[in-house]
Amino acid sequence: MNFELSEDQIAFADMARAFAQNELAPHAAEWDQEAIFPVDVIRKAGELGFCSLYAPESVGGLGLSRLDASIIFEQLSMGCTSTTAYLTIHNMVTWMLADFGTPDAVEQWGAKLATGELLGSYCLTEPNSGSDAASLKTTAKRDGDHYLLNGSKMFISGAGSTDVLIVMARTGGEGAGGVSAFVVEANAQGISYGRKEAKMGWNSQPTRTITFEDVRVPAHQILGNEGDGFKIAMKGLDGGRINIATCSIGTAQQAINEARDYMRERKQFGKRLADFQALQFRLADMVTELVAARQMVRLAATKLDAGDPDAITYCAMAKRFATDVGFKVCDEALQLYGGNGYIKEYPMERFVRDTRVHRILEGTNEIMRLIISRRVLADGAAEL
Amino acid sequence: MNFELSEDQIAFADMARAFAQNELAPHAAEWDQEAIFPVDVIRKAGELGFCSLYAPESVGGLGLSRLDASIIFEQLSMGCTSTTAYLTIHNMVTWMLADFGTPDAVEQWGAKLATGELLGSYCLTEPNSGSDAASLKTTAKRDGDHYLLNGSKMFISGAGSTDVLIVMARTGGEGAGGVSAFVVEANAQGISYGRKEAKMGWNSQPTRTITFEDVRVPAHQILGNEGDGFKIAMKGLDGGRINIATCSIGTAQQAINEARDYMRERKQFGKRLADFQALQFRLADMVTELVAARQMVRLAATKLDAGDPDAITYCAMAKRFATDVGFKVCDEALQLYGGNGYIKEYPMERFVRDTRVHRILEGTNEIMRLIISRRVLADGAAEL
Amino acid sequence: MNFELSEDQIAFADMARAFAQNELAPHAAEWDQEAIFPVDVIRKAGELGFCSLYAPESVGGLGLSRLDASIIFEQLSMGCTSTTAYLTIHNMVTWMLADFGTPDAVEQWGAKLATGELLGSYCLTEPNSGSDAASLKTTAKRDGDHYLLNGSKMFISGAGSTDVLIVMARTGGEGAGGVSAFVVEANAQGISYGRKEAKMGWNSQPTRTITFEDVRVPAHQILGNEGDGFKIAMKGLDGGRINIATCSIGTAQQAINEARDYMRERKQFGKRLADFQALQFRLADMVTELVAARQMVRLAATKLDAGDPDAITYCAMAKRFATDVGFKVCDEALQLYGGNGYIKEYPMERFVRDTRVHRILEGTNEIMRLIISRRVLADGAAEL
Amino acid sequence: MNFELSEDQIAFADMARAFAQNELAPHAAEWDQEAIFPVDVIRKAGELGFCSLYAPESVGGLGLSRLDASIIFEQLSMGCTSTTAYLTIHNMVTWMLADFGTPDAVEQWGAKLATGELLGSYCLTEPNSGSDAASLKTTAKRDGDHYLLNGSKMFISGAGSTDVLIVMARTGGEGAGGVSAFVVEANAQGISYGRKEAKMGWNSQPTRTITFEDVRVPAHQILGNEGDGFKIAMKGLDGGRINIATCSIGTAQQAINEARDYMRERKQFGKRLADFQALQFRLADMVTELVAARQMVRLAATKLDAGDPDAITYCAMAKRFATDVGFKVCDEALQLYGGNGYIKEYPMERFVRDTRVHRILEGTNEIMRLIISRRVLADGAAEL
Repeated sequence: MNFELSEDQIAFADMARAFAQNELAPHAAEWDQEAIFPVDVIRKAGELGFCSLYAPESVGGLGLSRLDASIIFEQLSMGCTSTTAYLTIHNMVTWMLADFGTPDAVEQWGAKLATGELLGSYCLTEPNSGSDAASLKTTAKRDGDHYLLNGSKMFISGAGSTDVLIVMARTGGEGAGGVSAFVVEANAQGISYGRKEAKMGWNSQPTRTITFEDVRVPAHQILGNEGDGFKIAMKGLDGGRINIATCSIGTAQQAINEARDYMRERKQFGKRLADFQALQFRLADMVTELVAARQMVRLAATKLDAGDPDAITYCAMAKRFATDVGFKVCDEALQLYGGNGYIKEYPMERFVRDTRVHRILEGTNEIMRLIISRRVLADGAAEL
Repeated sequence: MNFELSEDQIAFADMARAFAQNELAPHAAEWDQEAIFPVDVIRKAGELGFCSLYAPESVGGLGLSRLDASIIFEQLSMGCTSTTAYLTIHNMVTWMLADFGTPDAVEQWGAKLATGELLGSYCLTEPNSGSDAASLKTTAKRDGDHYLLNGSKMFISGAGSTDVLIVMARTGGEGAGGVSAFVVEANAQGISYGRKEAKMGWNSQPTRTITFEDVRVPAHQILGNEGDGFKIAMKGLDGGRINIATCSIGTAQQAINEARDYMRERKQFGKRLADFQALQFRLADMVTELVAARQMVRLAATKLDAGDPDAITYCAMAKRFATDVGFKVCDEALQLYGGNGYIKEYPMERFVRDTRVHRILEGTNEIMRLIISRRVLADGAAEL
Repeated sequence: MNFELSEDQIAFADMARAFAQNELAPHAAEWDQEAIFPVDVIRKAGELGFCSLYAPESVGGLGLSRLDASIIFEQLSMGCTSTTAYLTIHNMVTWMLADFGTPDAVEQWGAKLATGELLGSYCLTEPNSGSDAASLKTTAKRDGDHYLLNGSKMFISGAGSTDVLIVMARTGGEGAGGVSAFVVEANAQGISYGRKEAKMGWNSQPTRTITFEDVRVPAHQILGNEGDGFKIAMKGLDGGRINIATCSIGTAQQAINEARDYMRERKQFGKRLADFQALQFRLADMVTELVAARQMVRLAATKLDAGDPDAITYCAMAKRFATDVGFKVCDEALQLYGGNGYIKEYPMERFVRDTRVHRILEGTNEIMRLIISRRVLADGAAEL
Repeated sequence: MNFELSEDQIAFADMARAFAQNELAPHAAEWDQEAIFPVDVIRKAGELGFCSLYAPESVGGLGLSRLDASIIFEQLSMGCTSTTAYLTIHNMVTWMLADFGTPDAVEQWGAKLATGELLGSYCLTEPNSGSDAASLKTTAKRDGDHYLLNGSKMFISGAGSTDVLIVMARTGGEGAGGVSAFVVEANAQGISYGRKEAKMGWNSQPTRTITFEDVRVPAHQILGNEGDGFKIAMKGLDGGRINIATCSIGTAQQAINEARDYMRERKQFGKRLADFQALQFRLADMVTELVAARQMVRLAATKLDAGDPDAITYCAMAKRFATDVGFKVCDEALQLYGGNGYIKEYPMERFVRDTRVHRILEGTNEIMRLIISRRVLADGAAEL
């Protein structure tokens, strides 16, 4: 058992931290307030490999482990939660294409996604299927060499500004087994985009509804085989959950770092905030829970890397725990700032708004509890 | 002991609820997103007496109790948290002037504040004195028939759009005993306003810094006597704490009402959300805590109405408890909405943002704990 | 609305407090450690009317309201949680007999239960029907002028040391409608008692299983009519929930009072515990939550007194909230004592053990949540 | 980074688990109720090396790492929390002697402690110095070749039934620097023992006050040098905190395992408890927090093994987090059992009582927060 980062991991983390400090942090407030999707900066991130951390080297990815990726994303999210969260989604899309795409599809988009020249979106959720993703209604009907896509997708990160969509659609009967996954050009005929959603946070990435009307998708753009789509989507989500949990802990670490400095400077009643015991205790609890959350994320990542059959459960635990802790830490950091925590001159309220959605996305924390309890209560289940 | 509303209270509540539904709720989202201070609607509220609920009838106020006012504000805040919160501040200003102002000052502004023709701001907090309000640095130097005000105030609700300021400034030595309170015309020479603060919420009321440079204030615009200012400010805050706590419970009630309806409609996995036991239990806890919070607010209000020497402690307990519960209930209601909770099409994320500041304002919840513990640990203290 | 005690209520509370301090508190630790059921002291309590607070005056009861009773029980529980909890069960039995018994039965036992000359037990729970009380299996078969009771009851407070049992048994078909209630002599032929259960706390009252084998009960010993039993049992439980909740808040108040004194005396690092801010804040929260819990209990009691159709919901909310708060307060008081909190020389660990069962008894707090959510989610439900 | 147990660790864990199931679990309830200190079983544990897991092989210890020891203690505590907790204290004593004792002292007691032939106690706490251990008053005055010990110690585990004491006493001035540590024969002249404390739990180990009156201790029985005592004591406590935290997670794991089985068997309302969603969610949270707590413990152990300068902080975080989680998990497991959770026929209430003291011992969780916050707020502090 070994909890230390390797030299390579430290080097990656340092590089990511520098990028976060130089390229993300200085602009994060503006991107939030102006709802700017910083495509240029994402491409710059791509130059460093951040657009394809765990995609295989064959498409130009870094071929890193999920654990490595988590260590890097954590540092990036310290600079901008929302932009890093999008980046993790793009990484997931790149990996899904590279791992499950046909050779033609990989040839066509792999390298361009890997560098960030093209950006991707992951299209699973629909207006009436959120937690119950397997009930999705979008259809893909075989029509000669093509599939015809019809239906609509909701809450799609990047939608309207991305180039490649991975779309889950029904090719067969009801339930998970009838779903297939496709890679689709974002500007294909028949695709239309809804207005940009006004959201509580995650404002540096646009979120839109996408409508598919008789969109013709060449048959070779399927991922895996017909009926594999839900399994592929869920496999993506395991990693996605680690990534979102990672963005929570990175943001919370940044909140703690800034709150700590603030407590050492800000005075009330003739003393530094750092000298008030009740606030010291609160800070101690924030740090402790954050360290615990980070361990959970890294534990889950190693399980996923090892192909452990319980990886899904560990990912669910990490996602549930780290996103709850991340939000709570940010909320308490805001409180330590008093009135200053509530105004946009300080980043605390943004941290709270941005991390709030992590408790919902990539499977709500309620769905995580279902996954965990199902495993624990199963016949013959071993301890976790 | 009697926990039921009187007929008058029910009638007032009904009137307030109708106003909230017709005049506030339909516009609250827009006011939030566009940062509109709805002065016209506040004046309309004034026509119904909502600008001077507990100011004396001598200035045109309704002369109601704090309890009555809380019952009314609760209903109003169900329509718009932020606007109602401003309204409570205006009520405090009106009452402070009417109760502590000189006859000339009352004559000049009382009736106009009472009707809402003029609007007021309460100016206590300074950049370096938040929780430690008694350390304020703004000075008021006697100069013949006038006082000369110098200094600056921060986080002033309504600032820049209001007509009358109540300003706490130092006329004497250090500490609470050196503070006096003044009523000041908002456009007096030497007053300048900072830019409108970008805030997490409370967007329907502008918040600005105010700077005083040699502002000449006629001596009769003092409230009470020299040195009474801090005591007056704190007396105002006791009521202010009940009011802010009230806005938390009204908002939380609205969140519950809407979440309840949503749970009855929204289906996942072929069942209504209302049919999932884990969500039922959560809703039960939300309602239970809200009912407890409401009782705390009303208990504190009756203590204040009765002039109970422990009123300050009960107000502190009510403020601490109800603002924490209010935020938590809104946060959990958001979660029940899933992704829909995070977008501005639904009100949940606004409820969370608006109630967040209640844990900070009018004395942070940390200061509340100081007040409570000081009382409990005092020599010879009786049980509460 | 009025939150103050009446003069009569204050007088009752004073009398109860004196009794608690003189007759209960000095012995509570011994009764706990030696598992002594203090029948003599209960009879003494009966002399003051504490065995029939809300039973009608016709049987010698005080005919007080549930609110009055709660005020009195709260004071008593400050002296001994477990003994007072039994006393509340006895009061429930007395009231059930007086209200639902036939004239003959009331004649036979009413006055003797009212004075505490005879003691009663409430027999609802069975080994396989805890939360799902309506599924009870004990049968009462009509046999001429008698009923024949068969079956067994579990977790019966006082069992083996009491004189009169109220027993819920099935006279009809499945479900709640098939249940009837009977008053039964505790030493009737065919009744046998299990061994005294070793419990975590509540040690001053014996708990046993009761087995009924062809116990002949005269037909006039039914309460109400055949099939009324479950309704009567539940009506008893509404009050029972207020009573148990009351015992939680009384105990928690005592824990706070003692912890407060301890904090003012005990020194560490050259300062009183009372001077450590983190501990001050914790005490403040303990007091605040306790005050909220007390309000919830009194609110529910007035609803029950008024016959409010929502009384059951308010009782459920009060029980859930007050028993959770009561336990938490005692647990945190124990922590304030450090090592001393863990040894029996101090009462804190007993308070924790005694209040722990309140979250389970008289309907678990999970069942409370079911009751509350069912009401909130009902068609056309109004706000609570 | 690697979170998997090694083959050796798995083998040790299996051996410990078997011992826990065969030698501890069957007797734990009796030891608790009868307050039996199972010396024979402790000696049997010694035969397997469990009395000197991390003492050096030179004295007959297994020379394992703290991490290895934690893995073993976790399994043991699944069988009996209280006995395992004593065992961890004995291990600490053995290690302290072996690491800091003079050759003569090691010669005299090392091997016998390592096998469990002799048992040890750790004597730091005094009636007036609990959290503020450095203020201890027991004195050790040099008198020729001896020290004369005077003073008293409190809450000493094993006292009265052990053979060797490690005693912290003041040889110099005030504060930590004036403290020295000694190994003392438990039956030396001048040592007397108080009565066995009645405690909430931890009943399988006796706890007594020890009084020293002119106890003559040969000078070579000092550990390290004069003035090293507090440092040695604290070094012991770092490991002690990991051990106590470990006993919390082992107990909590056992509580979860049993609760899980109970939920799969116990039926109410015609369904297994395992089929109620609200209970599923609660179980999911229990498991998640436990996994997080275990990671924290293991992380801290590796830091201690590596001599990391932040080991003390990680130990404090692990102790605070794991003991709070452990108690909470046991408390919620008790609740899942309903009434059965409250009686001694089931182990749940014992788990709650036994783990309760872990939040207090080896430095209260409040002291842990001080340690953590001091580190985080220090000048130039790095992230944890």
